[in-house]
Amino acid sequence: MTPILQAVAPELLPFASQNIADAVESLNARSLDAATDIVAGLPLARVIDMFDRPELQRAGNLIARMPDARAAALLEGMADDRAADVLLELDEADRTRLSGRMRSGTLEALRQLMRYPPHTAGSLMTTEFVSVPADWTVAQTLAHIRDVERSRETVYAIYLLDPATHALVRTVSLRRLVAGEPDAPALSQAQRTEPVWVSASTDQEEVARLIRRHDLLAIPVLDEARHVLGVVTVDDVLDALIAEGTEDAHKFGGMQAIAQPYINTGFWAMIKKRAGWLCALFLGEMLTASAMQHFDDELAKAVVLTLFIPLIMSSGGNSGSQATSLLIRSLALGEVRLRDWWKVALRELPTGMLLGAMLGAIAIIRISIWQYGGIYDYGPHWVLLALTVAAALIGIVSFGSLTGSMLPFALQRLGFDPASASAPFVATLVDVTGLVIYFSIAAMILGGTLL
Amino acid sequence: MTPILQAVAPELLPFASQNIADAVESLNARSLDAATDIVAGLPLARVIDMFDRPELQRAGNLIARMPDARAAALLEGMADDRAADVLLELDEADRTRLSGRMRSGTLEALRQLMRYPPHTAGSLMTTEFVSVPADWTVAQTLAHIRDVERSRETVYAIYLLDPATHALVRTVSLRRLVAGEPDAPALSQAQRTEPVWVSASTDQEEVARLIRRHDLLAIPVLDEARHVLGVVTVDDVLDALIAEGTEDAHKFGGMQAIAQPYINTGFWAMIKKRAGWLCALFLGEMLTASAMQHFDDELAKAVVLTLFIPLIMSSGGNSGSQATSLLIRSLALGEVRLRDWWKVALRELPTGMLLGAMLGAIAIIRISIWQYGGIYDYGPHWVLLALTVAAALIGIVSFGSLTGSMLPFALQRLGFDPASASAPFVATLVDVTGLVIYFSIAAMILGGTLL
Repeated sequence: MTPILQAVAPELLPFASQNIADAVESLNARSLDAATDIVAGLPLARVIDMFDRPELQRAGNLIARMPDARAAALLEGMADDRAADVLLELDEADRTRLSGRMRSGTLEALRQLMRYPPHTAGSLMTTEFVSVPADWTVAQTLAHIRDVERSRETVYAIYLLDPATHALVRTVSLRRLVAGEPDAPALSQAQRTEPVWVSASTDQEEVARLIRRHDLLAIPVLDEARHVLGVVTVDDVLDALIAEGTEDAHKFGGMQAIAQPYINTGFWAMIKKRAGWLCALFLGEMLTASAMQHFDDELAKAVVLTLFIPLIMSSGGNSGSQATSLLIRSLALGEVRLRDWWKVALRELPTGMLLGAMLGAIAIIRISIWQYGGIYDYGPHWVLLALTVAAALIGIVSFGSLTGSMLPFALQRLGFDPASASAPFVATLVDVTGLVIYFSIAAMILGGTLL
Repeated sequence: MTPILQAVAPELLPFASQNIADAVESLNARSLDAATDIVAGLPLARVIDMFDRPELQRAGNLIARMPDARAAALLEGMADDRAADVLLELDEADRTRLSGRMRSGTLEALRQLMRYPPHTAGSLMTTEFVSVPADWTVAQTLAHIRDVERSRETVYAIYLLDPATHALVRTVSLRRLVAGEPDAPALSQAQRTEPVWVSASTDQEEVARLIRRHDLLAIPVLDEARHVLGVVTVDDVLDALIAEGTEDAHKFGGMQAIAQPYINTGFWAMIKKRAGWLCALFLGEMLTASAMQHFDDELAKAVVLTLFIPLIMSSGGNSGSQATSLLIRSLALGEVRLRDWWKVALRELPTGMLLGAMLGAIAIIRISIWQYGGIYDYGPHWVLLALTVAAALIGIVSFGSLTGSMLPFALQRLGFDPASASAPFVATLVDVTGLVIYFSIAAMILGGTLL
């Protein structure tokens, strides 16, 4: 048994000896009172490791219930990006009280981090990285890393700074440094190309894109003078990407994003997240009732027309949903840019027309079989009816593909997240126009016969 | 100018001096002939770096056009997981020819890698990692890393093996190793807890989940005897996650996933990916026409009923789409398990009923305002009509929420990916039943009056 475990009460042993992820999960499953007692009984080093995990729930509550001295020591010991997040969970009074107990250096760094808006490089970054003057040798740099390793979130990328201006010159990886001759300059082991960097306001999706593109373990965040403000590590990006993926999936499903797991979300919280969009879409969809009221003469004359309304409308929504999911993703990954909208429009229009024609052909076949087979009698003008349905499908699927593909561009242009475009939203947009297209085509083809 | 650049023809300088990601992008933009010439003129070390990037397109074509000796040297120099992927792009003849030129050790490793099915840890892993006997000292281990650094994809996690059985004992990170005393055993710097590992057949989503959960830079892939077969690195997981995110987004939009960027996908390839699902959904949705034919007597008697068909049907689809997007994500992240289906069902039923009641209330208000305001006359039985619409909304939104939430479970239970459930698929499922619910409620409430 390692020394750290000997001081722990037997009932707390699992929390002290499990791997951190399991210990955090077990703690999350306990009541707040039980969790408070467990945290009080564990060594500080272990508590720091647990609080460093973003998966730990109620971190703010737990800290507020600790003795002030221990809470302050915990915040000092935590990775500063996590400590800043936890401080933001506290109420104003607790935050002020604990701030008084902390070292001014740490406090200043945390205050700085708390200022950056969410979803930016600034809010994701840690200030606990390693930088050394660019004229140091490999041995000097390695000795420095040995000294500070414990207090740094990442040491795998080392930032070489101009000795006079402290501006970033080059990045060197720990692996290249370890492989270097001790007396060689650290700079000789550095990458030859300009370091890739971001600014504090860069969006996290762009940070993720750059880290992926250049296979980095960390990316430096620079200010205008090229000073290193902090670094964003690949594990923070991974977490941010997963959270953003969930957010986008919920939005595309037509609801507000939910950050907590499904099972942990309360009944009323769930209703709140879903009701807003559902009601908004319902109000939008009411226009279909208005459109149909407008055509009620036609409907009364030719009930047979109504049989195909759901079929035609859903095809428009489906093709729109396809196009929207394609373009949201392409815009998010930077494969397509705002200025490419017309190229996409020129692609989607013929695509939609062809897809609509395919569905139209199927519809004609279906109506013919039912008519000839005696399954249903569409009346004496059934050929014209079949043509109406097919023509409407071409029009509506083209319109759906075009609307669905342009919506993410329009949202981005207006400053919204393109991922706010949802399948139900597109379907609603297309439904009303779809009805108008259907009845207009019906009036043209069936005018004088059925209508 | 560094020595490596001096041997390069001036027109190729950008390809030799840009950062790798940019150079790969430039090369992708050239014709195959031009790219072949460029690759022929660059130093081998640079070509290896470029071919190591999965973003490089036509890697197989370019290798097939190289002199055999250079192609073999390139494959030897590349990361073996990438080399295996590229070999799979070649046709049988080229693969056999080049294999004859390669060292048997490399060839055996590549053959092994090519055997693992896609989306598994085995297909993502590299065999180029560092392992040493568990009784080595820190200094011995660091000296070994210095020797092999160039030929290893990752050196940030070092695997300590039992000297006799070669089974994995512990993992030590390069940072802890660098911080250790040279004469101390490497094991003393290792993590105290059991290493987290996966087997070669583990799905990539599970690999990603473990890497995230334990904040790892790499995870070892073990066989039954706990021998290390390879490691999966965080950057490979990042790429796999992004690709999987795109796949899921496309599927949820109701189409087959497209691996290439939108702009690079040909017209016919795009049609193929979209037409299949669109036609399948169209055929499914045809049941709505059949359902309506069944109720054509009611439709002829009460045309006013048809006015609300699109409104009611779309609400069922929208609530289903919300529930599906919630559950797909929860299942993918492991927040909800298959056996939890009944808990979800018990949550979704009251949620759907309440949401349906909210929409029903809005519908009653809307119909009343139009009737009293003289905007539209729904006839003498308009109160009963409003009640019919409201009751149908409660039934349909409950049914939509329940169906939408159970569909991902059903797919997973049947061995499919829960992410195959798409918004259009759910909408189609709900539409037919929605019509039946609507007309059945209408028959109950309006029987004897309107119907």
